[in-house]
Amino acid sequence: LKGLKGNAIVGQSGGPTAAINASLAGVVGAAKKSEVIDTIYGMVNGIVGVLNDNIINLSEIMKTDEDVDILKHTPSSYLRSCRYKLPKAEDAPEVYKTIFERFAQYDIKYFFYIGGNDSMDSVMKISNYASKIGYEINVIGVPKTVDNDLLITDHTPGFGSAARYIAASISELMGDCDVYDIDSVNIVEIMGRNAGWMTAASALARRGELDAPQLIYLPEVAFDTAKFIEDLKRVKALKKNVIVAVSEGCRTKDGAYICEGLSDGPVDSFGHKKLSGAARALEVIVKDNFPGVRTRVIEFSLLQRCAMHFASKTDLDESERIGQAGVRAAEDGQTGMMMIYVRQPGEYKISIDSYDINKIANGEKTIPNEWITDNGTNVSQEFLDYARPLIEGQPELHFKDGLPLYKRLP
Amino acid sequence: LKGLKGNAIVGQSGGPTAAINASLAGVVGAAKKSEVIDTIYGMVNGIVGVLNDNIINLSEIMKTDEDVDILKHTPSSYLRSCRYKLPKAEDAPEVYKTIFERFAQYDIKYFFYIGGNDSMDSVMKISNYASKIGYEINVIGVPKTVDNDLLITDHTPGFGSAARYIAASISELMGDCDVYDIDSVNIVEIMGRNAGWMTAASALARRGELDAPQLIYLPEVAFDTAKFIEDLKRVKALKKNVIVAVSEGCRTKDGAYICEGLSDGPVDSFGHKKLSGAARALEVIVKDNFPGVRTRVIEFSLLQRCAMHFASKTDLDESERIGQAGVRAAEDGQTGMMMIYVRQPGEYKISIDSYDINKIANGEKTIPNEWITDNGTNVSQEFLDYARPLIEGQPELHFKDGLPLYKRLP
Repeated sequence: LKGLKGNAIVGQSGGPTAAINASLAGVVGAAKKSEVIDTIYGMVNGIVGVLNDNIINLSEIMKTDEDVDILKHTPSSYLRSCRYKLPKAEDAPEVYKTIFERFAQYDIKYFFYIGGNDSMDSVMKISNYASKIGYEINVIGVPKTVDNDLLITDHTPGFGSAARYIAASISELMGDCDVYDIDSVNIVEIMGRNAGWMTAASALARRGELDAPQLIYLPEVAFDTAKFIEDLKRVKALKKNVIVAVSEGCRTKDGAYICEGLSDGPVDSFGHKKLSGAARALEVIVKDNFPGVRTRVIEFSLLQRCAMHFASKTDLDESERIGQAGVRAAEDGQTGMMMIYVRQPGEYKISIDSYDINKIANGEKTIPNEWITDNGTNVSQEFLDYARPLIEGQPELHFKDGLPLYKRLP
Repeated sequence: LKGLKGNAIVGQSGGPTAAINASLAGVVGAAKKSEVIDTIYGMVNGIVGVLNDNIINLSEIMKTDEDVDILKHTPSSYLRSCRYKLPKAEDAPEVYKTIFERFAQYDIKYFFYIGGNDSMDSVMKISNYASKIGYEINVIGVPKTVDNDLLITDHTPGFGSAARYIAASISELMGDCDVYDIDSVNIVEIMGRNAGWMTAASALARRGELDAPQLIYLPEVAFDTAKFIEDLKRVKALKKNVIVAVSEGCRTKDGAYICEGLSDGPVDSFGHKKLSGAARALEVIVKDNFPGVRTRVIEFSLLQRCAMHFASKTDLDESERIGQAGVRAAEDGQTGMMMIYVRQPGEYKISIDSYDINKIANGEKTIPNEWITDNGTNVSQEFLDYARPLIEGQPELHFKDGLPLYKRLP
């Protein structure tokens, strides 16, 4: 529906990233310049904000270009998030009734949702429902996830910043772990439930032979304790201080998370098991099998997804562009689409396109088998060539009193 | 002993920091320009490198000004470290005999040791022994420690960078912990065995009322479980998502570490108990007393001391200057001295002086009582005014392939 005149609304959903506000800044900046969009609203706590009428006027709040640029350089979800999974329309007609009444109330003709797989599922449902009832609205999904696990798009906004933080931190830990002349195994746990992209990014830290991480364990490869012990023996023969990078999502060939014995295992509202303790599980194995070796567990925790202070400029710039491109696609009448990155051949260059969201939502992209090497403990040069351009550049943060200045919801 | 001609040796000891190599760069840069120092050697693994003849020629390795500047911007201890405590001369004459034979072998007339309290103790012993046997050498200590717990000096090289990383990370976690509309208590564990300077630095993250950390627990204040529960109830009434900053060194009034029940408690070679788990101990209390509240433990781990990627430019510049000043003091004939920072009145400005090391070694500076407020859960404006200038400025790192370039021992 090209040239629809009215208002727009934007929301963020799923786990925060360093770049999700850059996409929001892209949407807000482009909407403010749009000739068909009047006001750009923000839903607070994702689609829950629409249901609860917790809606703010971003056209008013983000008055200047500087406001938008500070927003771009603010980590986590400015509009906050939700873990609410939109039910099927046939199962919960009252939910859709409320949403579309709210759209009518605010004269919403454009709906932008920035999020991961679960968010794209919501976009798909809203778009399909609008078609069914004949409500005129253009619905666009803007991807984000540190996990880099969305189909079709070359990579996901947010991944580059997470990868940069992880690689830099590993390179710093490398120096720290080497200072004492003792035998040590340092186990770094990295996010990623089913896809090992973030854990693999630790390999970007290496500059020389035997540099950390000496071993990498990905969820794509079934974990085997006996093999881990053999791997570690081999590496420890070459180097006293070892750094192991392990994904929180590592599983045995039976599909059991390696931390399952250790975790109290709560389940979130999407039915995903909350993971913690893969590194602790490996530590137990090392303690049992390498007596006298000092062990240490390091968890990058939330910082790996929200450390704007060492985000990737490339990631932030692309994330802003994909938000802007989402607005342009909607203005052009596209709906039910997710924006995607397309990598051009030759020197690194990304163009932005859109893609049928039905073919993306609920799928998952893991690391290709051929990029996993050394009997499942390493990643190939192809992975490094793929990931390296994504971590380029230090963003120009706004500083005040020695610290980055971030926008906070009023 | 002014104007001694000969060679110099420099070493690093104790735990790594982001700024200890800036001081090394200061010593190496000034020694290379010195008219009395010929070659500047480096001992590998601190004084153990002297005992083992593991000595490198830094005049050759750090050829250019760029080499020295990359060293300045390299985290952790380039020359590595040791936990070896130099015995008393009367208890181990053979150790001192070896050290001073090595000095003679390399024609060492200048000895620089960059480290914390335990390292200053070594400097004192070597200086005293040299006087006793009449070996002509100028022995200078250059302080470093993220803990900021050395006497006399206004602050310690390394603290500002740790404080900056901690404050920025807390400000980022604040946004992340706020995204879901749920009750949560997020407990961040920060280094500091007896002094709470690093934990207190988390307060620099605040820009508004109710900003994180809402509660701060320092080793200077006896921890009481009942009071903690009351503190948390009070804060949770004002804010759903709470961030608590807790020092690894928190103790009850009986002197027991709060994590003692949880920790397996190894002891390092200085007799310090290795701590971990203060945050886990608080988590247990929260789980038991705040049912339904989501808890999370975040440990800044080694990164808080070695995260060059967000070090303080002020800290690195001062750390280089204090290394340079150490060389000048030694050239002037000073010995048995530790270099110190002296804060000038008025606008922030640091001058560098030297001080009798006998009066510094083995003492410890904790946060003054009057800077601890809100019944032991907060720090005063005076602390913030003291710490704020120390975290100013983003250092100009050398980059390669999207990541900072660090020097590694050949």
